[in-house]
Amino acid sequence: MIDPKRIAKFKLKPGKKVRLKDHDTAWRPDGKGAEEVTEETMAKNLELLNEAQGKLFAGDQWSILVVLQAMDAAGKDGLVKHVMSGLNPQGCHVHAFKAPSAEELDHSFLWRCMRVAPARGTITIFNRSHYEEVLVVKVHPELLSKQKLPPKLIHKTIWKERYDDINNFELHLARNGTRIIKIFLHVSKDEQKRRFLERLDKPAKNWKFSLGDLAERKFWDDYMAAYEEMLTATSTKHAPWYVIPADHKFVARAAVAEILTNTILDLAVDYPTVSKETKLAFADAREKLLSE
Amino acid sequence: MIDPKRIAKFKLKPGKKVRLKDHDTAWRPDGKGAEEVTEETMAKNLELLNEAQGKLFAGDQWSILVVLQAMDAAGKDGLVKHVMSGLNPQGCHVHAFKAPSAEELDHSFLWRCMRVAPARGTITIFNRSHYEEVLVVKVHPELLSKQKLPPKLIHKTIWKERYDDINNFELHLARNGTRIIKIFLHVSKDEQKRRFLERLDKPAKNWKFSLGDLAERKFWDDYMAAYEEMLTATSTKHAPWYVIPADHKFVARAAVAEILTNTILDLAVDYPTVSKETKLAFADAREKLLSE
Repeated sequence: MIDPKRIAKFKLKPGKKVRLKDHDTAWRPDGKGAEEVTEETMAKNLELLNEAQGKLFAGDQWSILVVLQAMDAAGKDGLVKHVMSGLNPQGCHVHAFKAPSAEELDHSFLWRCMRVAPARGTITIFNRSHYEEVLVVKVHPELLSKQKLPPKLIHKTIWKERYDDINNFELHLARNGTRIIKIFLHVSKDEQKRRFLERLDKPAKNWKFSLGDLAERKFWDDYMAAYEEMLTATSTKHAPWYVIPADHKFVARAAVAEILTNTILDLAVDYPTVSKETKLAFADAREKLLSE
Repeated sequence: MIDPKRIAKFKLKPGKKVRLKDHDTAWRPDGKGAEEVTEETMAKNLELLNEAQGKLFAGDQWSILVVLQAMDAAGKDGLVKHVMSGLNPQGCHVHAFKAPSAEELDHSFLWRCMRVAPARGTITIFNRSHYEEVLVVKVHPELLSKQKLPPKLIHKTIWKERYDDINNFELHLARNGTRIIKIFLHVSKDEQKRRFLERLDKPAKNWKFSLGDLAERKFWDDYMAAYEEMLTATSTKHAPWYVIPADHKFVARAAVAEILTNTILDLAVDYPTVSKETKLAFADAREKLLSE
């Protein structure tokens, strides 16, 4: 297990300016065998998670939204695969947001996110999310002019407006029963290089690499600046960001499993109890079935 | 035409406490033949509206959202029929919000509204809307307990939270290119009685009456109080409310036609112009077609 105090340190404080350099990408638990111990606890966490998910689903009131953001090769897909694979897919949905479609661009940028917001009782993972609107679009402002916005609405305050809109959107979901966990997988530029080389060298990993990834890597510093500003502006009580060290995959996965499990357990959802009247009706139903 | 100064009076000022008794339900233009004159101008307005809609659609940047709220028999359906019938249905959608479905209750109350928010270039009319969440649900709080909200999220500030969420939602749409017009058709209790009796007496209007309407009429004062609080809390610069006198149907229809037409004209949308390069390419295309 990763020490809960450490997990608490990953969580950003609302209103505090974020400097990513202060967050170690390569953090890992001390000691020989720490990786094995961490992975063992993670396996236990995943069992707890599966049980908690069953109760969340039966309770049918709360829902969970996990937002995943990261630079390329930071481990988003692997995290979804390893942490979420034990869940019942009936109550768990993953939405990978790609470049917006023509229909999506015909609406406000939150439209496609609201459409797939989690239903009560379920867990939804946004693999990339509405945050791309203040990340890739901010780093490449030429994308903004392709969003079909009336030109007079594109002014200097647009990023602040988008942070506001995002905070308000998440507040609305939170007020109506959605617990929101936002994860930034924080990987170093060196580690990205190592993983890109691996993707180029291992045939089974070739499909994960595109030449565009290298072009984006050139904008690393711009992305870090956009992330810092975004994390500072959108860390809220109702929808906190966690900056998770991601140079070691086992650390990132164990940390997210722990955060997710604790969030559901914190909701204290249990299987709905049945009233006295219903119990009597059940007894009656039982008798009728037996006497058929 | 209804005097623009009068129309301006129908528009509520943000932040000002609303008292519906100060708004005359029976207002109508003075003078003999005023009804005929008003209807003639309305017909002209509808022609302008149809032309403006074509440009809105071609421009494909702005959209219009008309929110219609009123007590039963205030004339919502008739207004949609008379004011919107001249529009091209390809760019005009009407959504009548009924009691929420099981799938809708599994999401936050704005979910079903966001899903049908207008696409760029189009006009959407909400016949009833997200405002029912702070009207019928407020008058009948037992409905709230059926919305599957986690009980700990239902507290005294819930109506204020909902006003906030609604204002933020509308602000987001406005910032992204949607002009919002909110219409409250203000009818008197006496006029409702007269229209109910007509529905009971005329066989062709029978289908419009349900016994539930009479039950709701008993809550008239509660509804007026809910409307006043809601109108006070949600009149904003980006999404103004208009209190339209609705005892005379021709007045309500002419006023809404005028407001809608002026809103689109104010956007100054015109058919998109074609660049020099494109014009040259068009000339080339023309030649190729002719020489086939």
